[in-house]
Amino acid sequence: MIKAAIIGASGYTGAELLRILALHPEVEVVKATSRRYCSKSVAEVFPSLTGFYDGLKFSELGKPEEIKADVVFTALPHGVSQEVVPALLKLGVKVVDLGADFRLTDPAVYKEWYGDHKAASVIKDAVYGLPELHRGELKSAKLVANPGCYPTGAILALAPLVGKGLLNGEKPVVIDSKSGTSGAGRGASAEMLFSEVNEGFKAYKVGAHRHTPEMVQELALLASRSIDVTFTPHLLPVTRGILTTAYVWLSAKSSLEAVRGLYADLYGAEPFVRLMPEGVFPDIKQVRGSNYCDIGLHYDALDNKVIAVSVIDNLVKGASGQAVQNMNIICGFEETTALKNPPISI
Amino acid sequence: MIKAAIIGASGYTGAELLRILALHPEVEVVKATSRRYCSKSVAEVFPSLTGFYDGLKFSELGKPEEIKADVVFTALPHGVSQEVVPALLKLGVKVVDLGADFRLTDPAVYKEWYGDHKAASVIKDAVYGLPELHRGELKSAKLVANPGCYPTGAILALAPLVGKGLLNGEKPVVIDSKSGTSGAGRGASAEMLFSEVNEGFKAYKVGAHRHTPEMVQELALLASRSIDVTFTPHLLPVTRGILTTAYVWLSAKSSLEAVRGLYADLYGAEPFVRLMPEGVFPDIKQVRGSNYCDIGLHYDALDNKVIAVSVIDNLVKGASGQAVQNMNIICGFEETTALKNPPISI
Amino acid sequence: MIKAAIIGASGYTGAELLRILALHPEVEVVKATSRRYCSKSVAEVFPSLTGFYDGLKFSELGKPEEIKADVVFTALPHGVSQEVVPALLKLGVKVVDLGADFRLTDPAVYKEWYGDHKAASVIKDAVYGLPELHRGELKSAKLVANPGCYPTGAILALAPLVGKGLLNGEKPVVIDSKSGTSGAGRGASAEMLFSEVNEGFKAYKVGAHRHTPEMVQELALLASRSIDVTFTPHLLPVTRGILTTAYVWLSAKSSLEAVRGLYADLYGAEPFVRLMPEGVFPDIKQVRGSNYCDIGLHYDALDNKVIAVSVIDNLVKGASGQAVQNMNIICGFEETTALKNPPISI
Amino acid sequence: MIKAAIIGASGYTGAELLRILALHPEVEVVKATSRRYCSKSVAEVFPSLTGFYDGLKFSELGKPEEIKADVVFTALPHGVSQEVVPALLKLGVKVVDLGADFRLTDPAVYKEWYGDHKAASVIKDAVYGLPELHRGELKSAKLVANPGCYPTGAILALAPLVGKGLLNGEKPVVIDSKSGTSGAGRGASAEMLFSEVNEGFKAYKVGAHRHTPEMVQELALLASRSIDVTFTPHLLPVTRGILTTAYVWLSAKSSLEAVRGLYADLYGAEPFVRLMPEGVFPDIKQVRGSNYCDIGLHYDALDNKVIAVSVIDNLVKGASGQAVQNMNIICGFEETTALKNPPISI
Repeated sequence: MIKAAIIGASGYTGAELLRILALHPEVEVVKATSRRYCSKSVAEVFPSLTGFYDGLKFSELGKPEEIKADVVFTALPHGVSQEVVPALLKLGVKVVDLGADFRLTDPAVYKEWYGDHKAASVIKDAVYGLPELHRGELKSAKLVANPGCYPTGAILALAPLVGKGLLNGEKPVVIDSKSGTSGAGRGASAEMLFSEVNEGFKAYKVGAHRHTPEMVQELALLASRSIDVTFTPHLLPVTRGILTTAYVWLSAKSSLEAVRGLYADLYGAEPFVRLMPEGVFPDIKQVRGSNYCDIGLHYDALDNKVIAVSVIDNLVKGASGQAVQNMNIICGFEETTALKNPPISI
Repeated sequence: MIKAAIIGASGYTGAELLRILALHPEVEVVKATSRRYCSKSVAEVFPSLTGFYDGLKFSELGKPEEIKADVVFTALPHGVSQEVVPALLKLGVKVVDLGADFRLTDPAVYKEWYGDHKAASVIKDAVYGLPELHRGELKSAKLVANPGCYPTGAILALAPLVGKGLLNGEKPVVIDSKSGTSGAGRGASAEMLFSEVNEGFKAYKVGAHRHTPEMVQELALLASRSIDVTFTPHLLPVTRGILTTAYVWLSAKSSLEAVRGLYADLYGAEPFVRLMPEGVFPDIKQVRGSNYCDIGLHYDALDNKVIAVSVIDNLVKGASGQAVQNMNIICGFEETTALKNPPISI
Repeated sequence: MIKAAIIGASGYTGAELLRILALHPEVEVVKATSRRYCSKSVAEVFPSLTGFYDGLKFSELGKPEEIKADVVFTALPHGVSQEVVPALLKLGVKVVDLGADFRLTDPAVYKEWYGDHKAASVIKDAVYGLPELHRGELKSAKLVANPGCYPTGAILALAPLVGKGLLNGEKPVVIDSKSGTSGAGRGASAEMLFSEVNEGFKAYKVGAHRHTPEMVQELALLASRSIDVTFTPHLLPVTRGILTTAYVWLSAKSSLEAVRGLYADLYGAEPFVRLMPEGVFPDIKQVRGSNYCDIGLHYDALDNKVIAVSVIDNLVKGASGQAVQNMNIICGFEETTALKNPPISI
Repeated sequence: MIKAAIIGASGYTGAELLRILALHPEVEVVKATSRRYCSKSVAEVFPSLTGFYDGLKFSELGKPEEIKADVVFTALPHGVSQEVVPALLKLGVKVVDLGADFRLTDPAVYKEWYGDHKAASVIKDAVYGLPELHRGELKSAKLVANPGCYPTGAILALAPLVGKGLLNGEKPVVIDSKSGTSGAGRGASAEMLFSEVNEGFKAYKVGAHRHTPEMVQELALLASRSIDVTFTPHLLPVTRGILTTAYVWLSAKSSLEAVRGLYADLYGAEPFVRLMPEGVFPDIKQVRGSNYCDIGLHYDALDNKVIAVSVIDNLVKGASGQAVQNMNIICGFEETTALKNPPISI
């Protein structure tokens, strides 16, 4: 039994960590911080958790050395994690950071998209926490940079093709993604009111979303060359789920069977990636509340194009579930612990 | 052609006034005030209105004498209208107030539910703007207290029975209402985020909603005796619509046919109240975007009970549509002007 | 490890049984029948279950003696279970019936609401599967009549008051319930299309819903006298959840504290009933995907009235979760097995 | 005042025609056919229309010569219109066909996507009813092929670029569209149940949607060369609205200003196309219930790419509103008659 702390526990990713860890047999949550709800009990803030975490109250962050945990999840706005994480690492605490601060390996890229970094020297110690691509490095990681929700779905949709260097460099990589609203967080907002979002659908941050460089970084790493990505996020009137429709063109003739084979090769043994049968494309509902990423594939012989459609639950595989998966890896637990439940598809 | 101003035009009821008045052949909106969006054009704030109100920008309220309108709609939080309305009335401007400040005829009741009233002397000049019950008085009104959304649906559901003195005084009047989210307004809020409301449903302000005294007042007026009301509002995960399920017990045996006759008597000539056929109960969708109140009736001979179900669009008949209906009446226009469109039921 | 079969496994309650049992350490699902999907794999019909139940295909019902299970869940339309259950009982199989066939203990009442019963002699062997009220009898039951979804929420909301004989017999019992759409099942339908239900809300079967006699039976049993119930169901535009707003009047003065005490007495040790703090009323979201029933209470001293609000997930505590809870009881497992997960409230 | 008939009036596009025509000052609907609802009144089938169309009952189609209308709207499944339309044309009746039968000018293409055509000789008489591109021809048309919902949004999004021959022929045209559920019609269906669609999102008919050849035809006509289109439709959990995100690459350097200028040139005088300001992208909500198509534009200098985002209400500009617009044109009425209402954006 290890002790875990959640820094920034009253947002949606924090709440989701509490939900998932409630049934983790190896982890006790000993601290959950929240400025807004400081000194309130977990059940007061999240009535759904009544009966779980009975003694636990949200607390101030306090000094790092008072945290007394073996592993810390930081679920903080970008720019804030970097103020907390170095001290935790020095204390020998393992950290899974759910924010953006340690995902971009090149500090110059971070600066371009987010501004100055206050702990740039720590970036190199972070491992990008997509276990399907970085499991080996993760096993000995002290700091995990848990991937963004959009990159998780997009990279898993494309990795088998990009990794094999099959893409036609003259053609674009188009990633058209659609996300539920929980990705926007729990802060008061007029724009995200039910009355504003309900029955609506829109593109946002067209050409300017901060998850773009994260996709570029990981796809380029796989391809061993630079990859240009056209990424457009959209806001769905649902709470959970991201569907990514990715369009890529191959450099040589292929077939649906061959393409599917590449996905089977990379993901066949993965516990959380499921390839749909031929002709079947996944719905975001079929992974809701679970850590799965489901993928459907289309190949068009006319123009040598692959359309890959992936779905994840943005709060689980796109955030807190993947964070627990990473924690399981770095702490030496069975990787699927607390993550085996089937989705709630209806 | 008269000139109209909307004070507090950037909330949902203000926006709905702009939508409805856009096609009113007798009204020009010359002023729309908004502190938050001051100096922005209508289309910037409401892209849906692009191409309407081309020269109009939201402005500060300024001094009453600068308003230069024949009629003013005040769509303000309670307590604020009462600061503005007296001056407008002195200038000879007709006022339709969409807030709560002038609905309760007894200042003591107002004080109990809302606190001190700064213009108590004006209350007596206001006419409660439910045309189905107060059309006569409204014709010469200078100040209309536009009804609350819940009271509109509840009173119309019960008026034919209460007015006839048929209720069994030993039994309760239970009003169980369910409202869409637009009634909660457009202010930033964490509680009303899409992620919080979506797929949810809850009762709120149980035993304590401020629309209760308004129902009590109007039903007592109809009954010529005091009426106790048990009112429970609930929040529906839809944007528009209120459905009220009202339970009352009659003092003597009756029949569905007789009960339906009472409704036909009171509403048969009403342009905006529609009685559903026997056995048919209305859905909030069937009045969406329209000024209708649709009513379905059940009579149970076993316990002499009537269940009356009414539906309205809370932003139209429950607010801005009824306000325009009232304006039509007090300004001498055909009562249904700009309100004749069928609902958008799908 | 026992063997379980699900008869009628491709509807929503069947699918939910599969979801819940996937993680039950003591149960292996050996048979799942479905006429519509006969010979298809579970993953083909429910892509969310890809990777679970790998060898299992939907099959025809066949002969009872071929079922080879220790416990059978029957999730069938009323009138169909009664054709299957007697044979299963004769074979010594334990049965949890999720339909209506064995809930009403009086065959005359069954006949009035449903028509002739083909296995009336078996009715007396069934135990009504609300563990909070019938746990003792359930322990030795061979046939469990799993309660209807509405009765589960309504009876739990009222049992502490009714059981103590506190109700004022001159006043009504009003049960105003609102349910998500999954209760309507998975059959093709025009009325239940997304386009018809979305953004809508309506009452249905007013004064005529078949769950009424079930409530009457259980409340009368508790009260040791006949209880008249006014029950109105409504259709919510959400997939899961039932909220019941119950209005009752007490025969003598009480207090919120005293009323809450009665609920604490009855439910304090219950694993799946949670009493909300004073002034807090539950949202259907806070029990979604879980077996909880959460209850909020209001007491009004003016008219000695209690408003009790309960929420359940209609597919879990209102159907398949409660069925597993009952199976756990009759098979001697820890009652909460496979049901301990926190709700997915967002 | 002309007489209009609606063949197939009880589906969603039929109902929407009834809604829009209810306020058309020049049109009387004299006949509305429906096999399913034959002899029922309009209000029985569509309670929202209670009080409109009071004498009108749904009828069988009967013989064409009995229709006695000046203009006929055919809202029928593909393959059925072609059986009815030729006879109507012979009788001198003007026809607006909302189905697919007369949209594809090349019978071979029709055959490839839909099968044999029973009235191929009539195809050449049809004018594709996108007024923004074919207004001139429409004025004298006897038969209007009202465009599909997806093609309407996609073609309007791209026409200004394609028409000017600016596209880079080496790069793809990617049209990623997302539609509400009303496009799937009103037939009973298990797949389109609320419980199945709600909180879901998926791609469907990937690489195989029948609206593809319609886009190809019109874009090629504009470009005076063949255009290959990659089109992926998705199903949104909303009732109304289509958003299209179109990705195209230009053959030469341009600028956002220049691109916006092309759109302003083509659409500046159009009553129903609105160009959003720089940096603003439209939400499907902002056109709901209206005949508008709103467009937002992004230009990326790095790869010379334009992302054009268009929104329409699929039942209005994507079907029945555009049909009325076309009727207005072919009958010589002011083109915007009955279509001037602002959207219901909330």
